[in-house]
Amino acid sequence: MKQIAILGFGVVGAGIPAILEKNAESVTRAVGEPVRVKYILDLREFPDSPYGDRVIHDIAPILADPEIEVVCEAMGGSHPAFEFSLRCLEAKKSVVTSNKEVVANFGDRLLAAAAANGVSYLFEASVGGGIPLIRPFMTSLACDRITEFCGIVNGTTNYILTKMREEGREFDDVLAEAQALGYAERDPSADIDGIDAKRKLAILTALATGILPENDELAALSLRGISVRDLEAASLCGGRLKLVARMRRVNEKIEAYVCPMIVPDAHPLAHVEGVYNAVSFTSPATGDILYYGRGAGRYPTAGALVSDAAAILSGAAAHEAKPVFRREAGAILPFSEVRSDFYIRASGLLDPEEALSAVSEAVEVLSAKDGVCELVAKDCCLSALDAAAPGAVKIRILR
Amino acid sequence: MKQIAILGFGVVGAGIPAILEKNAESVTRAVGEPVRVKYILDLREFPDSPYGDRVIHDIAPILADPEIEVVCEAMGGSHPAFEFSLRCLEAKKSVVTSNKEVVANFGDRLLAAAAANGVSYLFEASVGGGIPLIRPFMTSLACDRITEFCGIVNGTTNYILTKMREEGREFDDVLAEAQALGYAERDPSADIDGIDAKRKLAILTALATGILPENDELAALSLRGISVRDLEAASLCGGRLKLVARMRRVNEKIEAYVCPMIVPDAHPLAHVEGVYNAVSFTSPATGDILYYGRGAGRYPTAGALVSDAAAILSGAAAHEAKPVFRREAGAILPFSEVRSDFYIRASGLLDPEEALSAVSEAVEVLSAKDGVCELVAKDCCLSALDAAAPGAVKIRILR
Repeated sequence: MKQIAILGFGVVGAGIPAILEKNAESVTRAVGEPVRVKYILDLREFPDSPYGDRVIHDIAPILADPEIEVVCEAMGGSHPAFEFSLRCLEAKKSVVTSNKEVVANFGDRLLAAAAANGVSYLFEASVGGGIPLIRPFMTSLACDRITEFCGIVNGTTNYILTKMREEGREFDDVLAEAQALGYAERDPSADIDGIDAKRKLAILTALATGILPENDELAALSLRGISVRDLEAASLCGGRLKLVARMRRVNEKIEAYVCPMIVPDAHPLAHVEGVYNAVSFTSPATGDILYYGRGAGRYPTAGALVSDAAAILSGAAAHEAKPVFRREAGAILPFSEVRSDFYIRASGLLDPEEALSAVSEAVEVLSAKDGVCELVAKDCCLSALDAAAPGAVKIRILR
Repeated sequence: MKQIAILGFGVVGAGIPAILEKNAESVTRAVGEPVRVKYILDLREFPDSPYGDRVIHDIAPILADPEIEVVCEAMGGSHPAFEFSLRCLEAKKSVVTSNKEVVANFGDRLLAAAAANGVSYLFEASVGGGIPLIRPFMTSLACDRITEFCGIVNGTTNYILTKMREEGREFDDVLAEAQALGYAERDPSADIDGIDAKRKLAILTALATGILPENDELAALSLRGISVRDLEAASLCGGRLKLVARMRRVNEKIEAYVCPMIVPDAHPLAHVEGVYNAVSFTSPATGDILYYGRGAGRYPTAGALVSDAAAILSGAAAHEAKPVFRREAGAILPFSEVRSDFYIRASGLLDPEEALSAVSEAVEVLSAKDGVCELVAKDCCLSALDAAAPGAVKIRILR
């Protein structure tokens, strides 16, 4: 019998004992013996839960108990999740987490602490919920080199964009409905302003390049202000509008940002709809690979925590390649200098094609009527475009 | 320095030293030391290859050399690939393979031999080329239970169907072009008759259920005889025609077959085009997950062999959950009894709706003119349909 501890008994944390019970047979087979939850650290009491008797309010017993090899951190927020994770690792207990905020902010320090103490810090559940994404990234692709990726890593915003497109409804309307249905938080900023997606971008960028970007090095554009008109523009360009997390190595720099992009219909990411997530990776040997699945939810996320815990308890994780994250100032190219194709909608410009030809070698007019011109400008950067067409709507096109 | 041996220096085998050279840095990091090819077993000589001096024609030196921990089998065909693999395992050398024919026919015996000798038999490269599919299946999903999957696992047939749909050209025409371009073999039966897809179906079924089906227990329908008319019918049903490998657990039985199916547009598999492959898995905790990428080709496939070899050489594979394949007669439901929704095109039936209502509770007429009727019949089986509408075209619809 193996004993584990859970930090945080919220949506995800409470899913862990449920998965351990439901999948007891396969967990036992994977680990070699049964797995049981011994402690649940939470500020609250859970008198009605069958696991209520395991709830404690102090981390000390977990740190002191030699039976605990693995701690599952599902607290959310940076603090005290970071401090608790660090103390667990220093007490030579492996930590598995679904907390993308902690991994994005402190992944470098926590991985270093894990390595220094001969234990593991695993975070499969922090990106893409239940989609096995990080382990294949670390093991199967260990002998390859990820040169770029693009992903839909936030289900709430993808749900909103899908509804807007399918039903022709505006952003505020669909957001209000999503909040009423519980798909979006009462304060939706983390999702719709790209904050959540940016954390996942930071983690994937660090896995692909070794460099964990600082929060303020990554641009994240909000979905606020996106209109049905923009979705129609995407359609005019032969694609769909998606909130995309994008990383690309260009020369010696790294492009990494989150923004609404027009994804061409031929790209598999264009067909990821509703609350689904997907990430597409490119590497020289393997070409393009895409992983798709439910990016959130109690059971997918708790399932990913359990599989990380099982990898440790079975002994496999100790032999897996371990990521090392470092900080490197100046590695990330400023967002305004990242070159893309752009869809542009300009009104009032006397000759938009002429105005843009100075900043892009290929400008194609899609439509022009009533003083509004829609164009595609290839391979240019935002800073130049902003100077040439200051008031225009500009949406990047994924290539 | 770790030394490996390669069996078969064809398209895939010759990719292995290329990948080891190109990705030397990441391979060394993953394994802990550099990896070098010591022997290449092939009947031919390769005087112009930089690896020509390592070519041997007898397996004995490989079996006898204590430096060889891993043998990469890329021979193709059942014999002598099976016998050579078995002898390597019995000599306590791990084997990694891209040879789906051997895994589908002898996977049970080779996995048992690996277990008996304390070594590994890995076959990531046998399904989905370079897409990391089997390792996530075995590790990340080890704590879950795969209840069904469906996949596009043959790039040649998917390329043909994509071209037929996009260009409105008939099967024979597109096949001839694919052969001229080298995308299809001169004898295309293994691809277009579903034989290759059936081998991958057998392997995935065994991974999901533990039961390796016998070749004659699995139905595989050919793509021969599919016409542009059938692709238009798929469109009429709101989907695209694909050659699908499908497995589903139903009660105590396993449904497993390869056949052309209409995949609804809302299913991500519908948008897998050209030579790409994808497999979608369903499990209770995780929901649906899909893996997508290049299913064949020298570098993706050789890359998968190298990553399997690296997993062994780093010591990680020894701790991974190992599949056990067993045979179980009668576990697979006969194809004619597998219930599906069907698209049906019947001519000459006096009242096709009436004729089909006896075998399906929900029949919907899509069109009826010039004595030809197109219908959808829900939840019925082929044996009953064949009796009710003997001469009609019948295509399964994926649900």
